[in-house]
Amino acid sequence: MSQTLSPRALREQIRAGKHSGNTSGLAPGFVQCNIVILPAEWANDFLRFCQLNPKPCPLIAASNAPGEHALPPLGDIDIRTDVPSYRVFRNGELTEEIPDITDLWRDDLVTFALGCSFSFEEALLADGLDVRNVTEGVNVPMYRTRIDCTGAGPFRGKMVVSMRPFAAADAIRAIQICTRFPSVHGAPVHLGDPGLIGIDNLARPDYGDAVTIGDHEMPVFWACGVTPQVALENARPPLAITHSPGCMLVTDLRNSQLAVL
Amino acid sequence: MSQTLSPRALREQIRAGKHSGNTSGLAPGFVQCNIVILPAEWANDFLRFCQLNPKPCPLIAASNAPGEHALPPLGDIDIRTDVPSYRVFRNGELTEEIPDITDLWRDDLVTFALGCSFSFEEALLADGLDVRNVTEGVNVPMYRTRIDCTGAGPFRGKMVVSMRPFAAADAIRAIQICTRFPSVHGAPVHLGDPGLIGIDNLARPDYGDAVTIGDHEMPVFWACGVTPQVALENARPPLAITHSPGCMLVTDLRNSQLAVL
Repeated sequence: MSQTLSPRALREQIRAGKHSGNTSGLAPGFVQCNIVILPAEWANDFLRFCQLNPKPCPLIAASNAPGEHALPPLGDIDIRTDVPSYRVFRNGELTEEIPDITDLWRDDLVTFALGCSFSFEEALLADGLDVRNVTEGVNVPMYRTRIDCTGAGPFRGKMVVSMRPFAAADAIRAIQICTRFPSVHGAPVHLGDPGLIGIDNLARPDYGDAVTIGDHEMPVFWACGVTPQVALENARPPLAITHSPGCMLVTDLRNSQLAVL
Repeated sequence: MSQTLSPRALREQIRAGKHSGNTSGLAPGFVQCNIVILPAEWANDFLRFCQLNPKPCPLIAASNAPGEHALPPLGDIDIRTDVPSYRVFRNGELTEEIPDITDLWRDDLVTFALGCSFSFEEALLADGLDVRNVTEGVNVPMYRTRIDCTGAGPFRGKMVVSMRPFAAADAIRAIQICTRFPSVHGAPVHLGDPGLIGIDNLARPDYGDAVTIGDHEMPVFWACGVTPQVALENARPPLAITHSPGCMLVTDLRNSQLAVL
C-alpha cells in the first residue's frame, strides 16, 4: 500500500477489499479514528460515557441518525466498508473479525468516531521527539490502571493508558504539544511512578508491546482509546462493532485541523 | 502596607520611603520585576545574555537609553527610587543594601526589568494548585544546577532553578499554565530526579527555604531569576545594582497581559 495515497484513494482501496491491514503510517497528515458502532438503544449512554471521559474517549464525530452509514464531517465515508478490519462483539464477547459489515448493518446502528494517538504521535515526531514505539517499530505499550472512568449507564471501567518514555525536558515539551490536541487524548494523565496509578510492571503491558526505557527517562502516560473497548466489554451490549486494533478509519480531516491553538 | 493599593500608589509609598520591604502579595494581579542596572559598557553583553537564556532571564523591559531612569512600558516609574531595597555590587561583591540609589545614579546606567515567578505562581494559585512555598509561608527553594547558561561576553554561569513539588497530574497542569507565560520563566525546565540536573539534596537549597515534598509528589523545577545574579557575580562589573531579594519593582502591567494565549 503506497504511503502517498490520499485518504479518499486509500478508503477506495479498502472499500474494494484491496487493503485489510494496519493503517499506521498511511495517508500521513490525516486523522485516523477509533470506531465504535452500537444499537441506538445503547448509543445515548455511550455518548454520555464519552462526554464524561473526554481524555480516553475524545469524540470527533458521530452519525447524524441511527442507520446512517455516512460520516459527512470526516469525508465521503461508508462506515460499513471503509474500515480495513472490524471486530464484532456479541454480549461483550469477540465473535468475528471481518473486512466488511454490510451484511450486519441494521437501521438502528449508530457510529462513533474517536480520536487516536497516531495524530499526536505525528506532532511529537514533527517536533523531533523520539517516540519509542515508533523508533522500535512496535505497538505502543498499554496498561490497565486503577483510575476509574466516570460511569454512564452500563458503560464503566478503569482507564487504559498508553506509555511513551521521555527525558524530563522532552516530557515537558510533549505535554505542551499534546495540550494543543484535546480531541486526540490531549495532555498526558500521569508521568513518573507507575505504581501511583496501579501499574505494577512496565515490562509487561496489558496490550501492545514493551518498549525500552532509558536510565534518564521517565514513563509518560496518555489516556488511551482502548478504554472505551473495556467499557464495551463491561456493558455487554447484544451487538457492538469496532475497528480491529491498528486498522483505523482514515479520514479527510488533517491532524493540524485538530489543534485548538 | 495595604494589599489593595494600586501599583502606582504602592510605588508612591516606596518612593516616599514608607515601604522598604518585601513586595510579595502586594498589588495582586500586577507584574513584579527583577531589576538589573549596569553601566552602558556592560549592558550590551548582558542584553545578549538575556536573549540567549530567555527562560532564566526573561526580559520584559529595558531603559530606552543610558542614563534614563524611566521605564515607560511598565508605568510611571523612577527606577532610582521605586524599588523598596537595592543591592549594590562593586567588582562582583555586595557592598551596600539601600532604599534609594539617587546618589549613585550616573548618565551611563542602563536598567533591565526581568520577569519574576510571582506572576506564574498567581496563575497556579488561581487554578487551585497548592504552591508549597506559599502554603508554608516561606521563600521558594532555589538550587544551583549543572546546566550551563549560554555565555555572552563576561556573563556566564550555571542556571539556578526554583522548585515546587506537585503530584503528577498537577505537574502536568502547571506545565500547561506556565507555558502561557514565557516572559515569567515559562514552562518548567525539569521535573523528577534532581540528580539529573546536578542537585544533590532537595532539603538543602542554595537560596531560599526547603519545603515539604509529599510521598506522591515529584519536584518540578523552573528557571529562576537568581541566574542573572550569578552571571553578574561571575562577570564582576565595576558597578551593578539589583533589587534586594523579594523586594521587586511593582509595575502597572497586569499578569494576565503576559499570557501569550
